[in-house]
Amino acid sequence: MNMSSPRLIGLDWGTSSLRGYLLGDNGAIQETQSRPWGILHTPGGDFAAAYRDLVGDWRARWPEIPVLASGMIGSRQGWREAPYVECPADPARIAGGLLAFETGCGELRVVPGLLRQGELPDVMRGEETQILGAMALEPQLAEHALLVLPGTHSKWAVLREGRIETFATHMTGELFALLREHSILGRPAREETPDVSPDAFLRGVRNALGSGPESVSARLFTARSLFLTGSLRAAHTLEYLSGLLIGEELRSVLSRFPDGEFPPVVLLGEGALCERYRDAMAECGIARIRVLEHTAPAGLWRIAVAAGLVESETSAGLATSAHE
Amino acid sequence: MNMSSPRLIGLDWGTSSLRGYLLGDNGAIQETQSRPWGILHTPGGDFAAAYRDLVGDWRARWPEIPVLASGMIGSRQGWREAPYVECPADPARIAGGLLAFETGCGELRVVPGLLRQGELPDVMRGEETQILGAMALEPQLAEHALLVLPGTHSKWAVLREGRIETFATHMTGELFALLREHSILGRPAREETPDVSPDAFLRGVRNALGSGPESVSARLFTARSLFLTGSLRAAHTLEYLSGLLIGEELRSVLSRFPDGEFPPVVLLGEGALCERYRDAMAECGIARIRVLEHTAPAGLWRIAVAAGLVESETSAGLATSAHE
Repeated sequence: MNMSSPRLIGLDWGTSSLRGYLLGDNGAIQETQSRPWGILHTPGGDFAAAYRDLVGDWRARWPEIPVLASGMIGSRQGWREAPYVECPADPARIAGGLLAFETGCGELRVVPGLLRQGELPDVMRGEETQILGAMALEPQLAEHALLVLPGTHSKWAVLREGRIETFATHMTGELFALLREHSILGRPAREETPDVSPDAFLRGVRNALGSGPESVSARLFTARSLFLTGSLRAAHTLEYLSGLLIGEELRSVLSRFPDGEFPPVVLLGEGALCERYRDAMAECGIARIRVLEHTAPAGLWRIAVAAGLVESETSAGLATSAHE
Repeated sequence: MNMSSPRLIGLDWGTSSLRGYLLGDNGAIQETQSRPWGILHTPGGDFAAAYRDLVGDWRARWPEIPVLASGMIGSRQGWREAPYVECPADPARIAGGLLAFETGCGELRVVPGLLRQGELPDVMRGEETQILGAMALEPQLAEHALLVLPGTHSKWAVLREGRIETFATHMTGELFALLREHSILGRPAREETPDVSPDAFLRGVRNALGSGPESVSARLFTARSLFLTGSLRAAHTLEYLSGLLIGEELRSVLSRFPDGEFPPVVLLGEGALCERYRDAMAECGIARIRVLEHTAPAGLWRIAVAAGLVESETSAGLATSAHE
């Protein structure tokens, strides 16, 4: 084997972007392409044309290698719906839910999303692949870890004994954007250039963490009342609001660990946003938090191994089906 | 005295509308006018011209009677800012904070808003007048009552011994509108005509009330996951969301009365929205809730009495300064 022989084409096809990876032995990234063609922005809604554009050359050169995609492309709004697989789920279970279909440019396999059943169920799609990627890159996390994927819809996932045991979604990023753009809370900052202010951010975090039973819609309003009473500068209101929302997310998660005994915490995602979460967690006494970026290719590789689409000596050691 | 002799012009000048009342003896309403000229919609932002248009004829006929306005017209974004008065506040204290100025069409007095001091302060402006109106109309509420003013920014106020003792703001209505118009939660109902569904509404209320420590941004996401998993119809998602948000408001207020012993609860506001709150409260076991509408004129009259602008034999019995 050598680096010149690709083994898998992996696609991370989400709401806002489409990324393609040509992966070699052990999932090593050989080439990367990306387009701003998330499923809501695919030109003409023509997924097949977008797919051909991205992988056509790769497939022409290496027609034999499998193609695997994860993310919202497998949702009801995507190309084909890959039904959810239920939690707890390990790589084998997720691989068992792959949806394969002929694209006109070879066969494509789509990774299913995850469903947590219950009276109030929850769903994810795309994040499961990033999480398995983190487990593949840092095998010790598989035993027990808390993974945080901040974003529009932040996900918190508990890993235990090689499986994604459970998870929860928080609409933190979407709420922040809505309030900033459209609400009365965002008005001061729309009229004045916002300033960076770690102090205002941590004030928001602390107010959320220290809050009693008042409703979140009441707590949010403090971004208005503190401004109106001269205790918060217009330019700092967004930082405070961001702190309130992230603090509310942390408050909820912390309450699941009343004894303060956390498994290792890992942030998955883009640097600046992860830093914000790291600062907020430090305020709660959670230190030594790892940050991992770009774990989707490793996750796609891990699922391909579990599905038998590729063989990988080194990653075989990560197989977790023995735990099921 | 007879009905033909007006005593006070009262204005309820809020964010979205301007209402004028010609009040006679004991605050009896003789004439009403209204314009869609809330402070955000006043033509040309010319408050003086809007004022002349509304009260010009009244003032020409009865130049001697005082004019009193409440609401956002006294805010920083309004005509002149009437500084907040601090809670607890009785009618005399609020009357002591009136801001008087010459308009070019006679003198106008503006009612101050209320401020609740604290690490997380809160403010209201306009609602204090509606609340005093409710106290004037139903004197027995003054001793102890919980008043709820549902809306864009819902207010809950505790009356005790003739004073507005404390209050809290919940951004429930604004959050609902934002989520409906702009968020992923509103998408199903934007693509399909929403249906009325008391069941979906109460399901949302119950899910909010029964919720554990999970964050609100997590609970909101159940409007998405229940829809995606087929357990909530697209046409009912807004009803469910409305129930979640109102239920969250109730959950927070209920937690302040752990023994379930409530003072009398009164809803102030528009009928359909009050019905929604009444249904939600019934779900919490709070029954026998009074609903009062259009209490602003009675509140303006009550403040005018306290300020000595008008005399009123029958309302003199309501004066509560003896409790201070």
